[in-house]
Amino acid sequence: MSLQQAGFPAIYAVNPKYTDVFGIPCYPRVSDIPGVVDYVIVGIPAESALELLDDCAVKGVRAVQFFTAGFGESGITERAELEQTMLDKARQGGFRIIGPNCIGLFVPKSRLVNAGSGPMEPGPVAFISQSGGHASFFPADGGPRGLRFSKVVSYGNGLDIDDSELFHYFASDPETEIIAAYIEGVKDGERFKAALREAASRKPVVIYKGGTTGAGLRAARGHTASLTSSVDVFKALCRQVGAIQVDDFDELIDVLVALRFASPRPQGTGVALVGAGGGPSVLASDEIEKVGLYMPPISRETKEELLQFLPLAGSILTNPIDAPTLATSQAIGPTMRVLSRLPEVHILIYHLGFHPIGGLGGGRFASPDFLEPTIDAMKKVWQESGKPIVLAVRPGLSMEAMKEFLAIQEAFVNAGFPVFHSLRQAAVAMSRLVAWSETRRSVPGES
Amino acid sequence: MSLQQAGFPAIYAVNPKYTDVFGIPCYPRVSDIPGVVDYVIVGIPAESALELLDDCAVKGVRAVQFFTAGFGESGITERAELEQTMLDKARQGGFRIIGPNCIGLFVPKSRLVNAGSGPMEPGPVAFISQSGGHASFFPADGGPRGLRFSKVVSYGNGLDIDDSELFHYFASDPETEIIAAYIEGVKDGERFKAALREAASRKPVVIYKGGTTGAGLRAARGHTASLTSSVDVFKALCRQVGAIQVDDFDELIDVLVALRFASPRPQGTGVALVGAGGGPSVLASDEIEKVGLYMPPISRETKEELLQFLPLAGSILTNPIDAPTLATSQAIGPTMRVLSRLPEVHILIYHLGFHPIGGLGGGRFASPDFLEPTIDAMKKVWQESGKPIVLAVRPGLSMEAMKEFLAIQEAFVNAGFPVFHSLRQAAVAMSRLVAWSETRRSVPGES
Repeated sequence: MSLQQAGFPAIYAVNPKYTDVFGIPCYPRVSDIPGVVDYVIVGIPAESALELLDDCAVKGVRAVQFFTAGFGESGITERAELEQTMLDKARQGGFRIIGPNCIGLFVPKSRLVNAGSGPMEPGPVAFISQSGGHASFFPADGGPRGLRFSKVVSYGNGLDIDDSELFHYFASDPETEIIAAYIEGVKDGERFKAALREAASRKPVVIYKGGTTGAGLRAARGHTASLTSSVDVFKALCRQVGAIQVDDFDELIDVLVALRFASPRPQGTGVALVGAGGGPSVLASDEIEKVGLYMPPISRETKEELLQFLPLAGSILTNPIDAPTLATSQAIGPTMRVLSRLPEVHILIYHLGFHPIGGLGGGRFASPDFLEPTIDAMKKVWQESGKPIVLAVRPGLSMEAMKEFLAIQEAFVNAGFPVFHSLRQAAVAMSRLVAWSETRRSVPGES
Repeated sequence: MSLQQAGFPAIYAVNPKYTDVFGIPCYPRVSDIPGVVDYVIVGIPAESALELLDDCAVKGVRAVQFFTAGFGESGITERAELEQTMLDKARQGGFRIIGPNCIGLFVPKSRLVNAGSGPMEPGPVAFISQSGGHASFFPADGGPRGLRFSKVVSYGNGLDIDDSELFHYFASDPETEIIAAYIEGVKDGERFKAALREAASRKPVVIYKGGTTGAGLRAARGHTASLTSSVDVFKALCRQVGAIQVDDFDELIDVLVALRFASPRPQGTGVALVGAGGGPSVLASDEIEKVGLYMPPISRETKEELLQFLPLAGSILTNPIDAPTLATSQAIGPTMRVLSRLPEVHILIYHLGFHPIGGLGGGRFASPDFLEPTIDAMKKVWQESGKPIVLAVRPGLSMEAMKEFLAIQEAFVNAGFPVFHSLRQAAVAMSRLVAWSETRRSVPGES
């Protein structure tokens, strides 16, 4: 079966030395290709870029993506000038440039993939990334958490198509419901602000800004030739337009998971925490309140209600609710039901496997005897209460624990739950979601 | 082979219903045991505690550890009073109580283990833990990072033997060089302060204080009946006596790894960061400078030196040093050597596998072709420079990545390197170490 028969667009290789590459027909120049050429992916040395672009203009291609690096980001003046000449050629030739110094596009619907891998089933999340590494790994990192993607765009030095244009595009892209971005620096502040404002007024926008310290800024400059802007200015801008700013790449994925699966959106900051383990419960409570969420203490009546099916010895019944039996399926449903009915509780968090070694790994939590009734019970409470329920499960650091973790994650993700890899991550993501939802509610006509 | 022949102390079971348990001889009461009894581990209901203690006094035992919970921490007045009667009985009977509501001791040298598991080879780290979960998992969590343990003590409600007594004990225990502690609350502030001061003046002390928020405090009270003290007071106390306070359990392990293996102690805050990946390098730089470490920019001359063996295209040569070839063994040694000679660099960090999916998993970094020459080269630079070298390697979230991660971790740990599971964790731990070392240097006669 040819690649075309497998649903991929026609692919041609270009190299003067070969006539075929991995069975793909190969031509000396782009202009020698017999069919129509929409999209050119470039991996030749920077020195040959201009000649190639002339050829692309002749052929009438629509877009050229430069994987090739060593342009403006190298800090060499001639290379920065070369970039400008490339841009002139694109304008004259009537085509667009993506990059240079980028990994290109991941568009599952078109079966167009870059260096990375990820779910080929399309979905509502778009990602704009100044880093090729982040762009190529993003679908693979987000996929197992249930995220699916419309378009992932790595734009590198952003010579022609840049962040602003991409925000503008995704604001009205019907296939995109949530916009994520990794930004190192912004070249035209006013244009960026307008595009970000447009996007954030129409869809949830989550931004991870890299380069927030002296060394980070220097690295960003060397990475994608970014004229990085002041950290405080960027933060103020996000707040002003209603975009969610996150502190690192993992948090970007976490907040997307919260936006996508913590539904309905939480109506307040009240968290009920359920799980087994005293030390972990203390730590978890601290993590939750540190980020501005609130764990309302439960009343004597609620405690009495819980004691009908939870033991006294070895338990903490104050919110957090920790009991040895909360690692069994029978106790989880009734416990969550009682807590979900409290008006001061807006979010329920269940945690599993706090310790990296030994927290998981016995295989018990991956067994259908545990997973199926637990998930069924939690889904019922979710539906009855209309309050988001979140799982925090720690990937353990052994082969056995990883196997168990992957089975737990898959089952909860398939059931539609937001899954986080630590209590801290769950708390941070949910606090971002709550803060953002509150901003939305204050805007008339938004939800 | 009997347990005794296998090196374990004589073990007897006590239960009126059986004559043997798993092949271990079983007696109706402690006083029926024919041999000498040093240590009693109790798992009977709280209601029978007093009767048991009377029997222990008759038998002349030395210590009684109560796994049994449901005492003061339950919030029930009669149960708190029961605890006090137990203490009276211990004082009269001339024996000590550990707990109640605790998991007991892990002492590899005596082959005494609690609910957890861990390396049975003894080592210099002691752990004092108010949480049984933390105490039982601590050796398992720290073991693969190279930590070895003298004594791990879970003391639960701390009825008789408490945190203060344990700090005092470990301050002069010849088998202990580093003292770690998990504390939820302190009952006698002045006594605790004196014991902590004594310990911290003689050995590095690292404390994770649980219960730093409203909910955390409440949970701690329900967990181990702790009268938790003000967070600020605790922080001030640690600073005053020179103990290192950490923010969570993972950070506790991380700082112990830094104390144990980042040698010689760093002489300043200057970090050189080496690894492949632009996005990760930007993030890593931010993580490092956020915690108060400093990444000195490199000079034009150093950059020229690096360009003798690193490529220009796709690289960031500013500190961070990111180059595609820095994921190959050949480039790592010379790069690290150049950086280690800079007087403004005090710590070298090498990072691998930033992304949870795809960062590791190809198996390449676990192959001896990569690991052996890389570790050899890094060890040489370490020895020549006398500056600590640190590995940050991210455990990936797939079976393949976990396998690769475990092989990498094992090889670096066996070679004596401090290994951290993320750049953030490496940065935080090293910054704690630097801050603590500076305090030490300011005290005459300390190193």
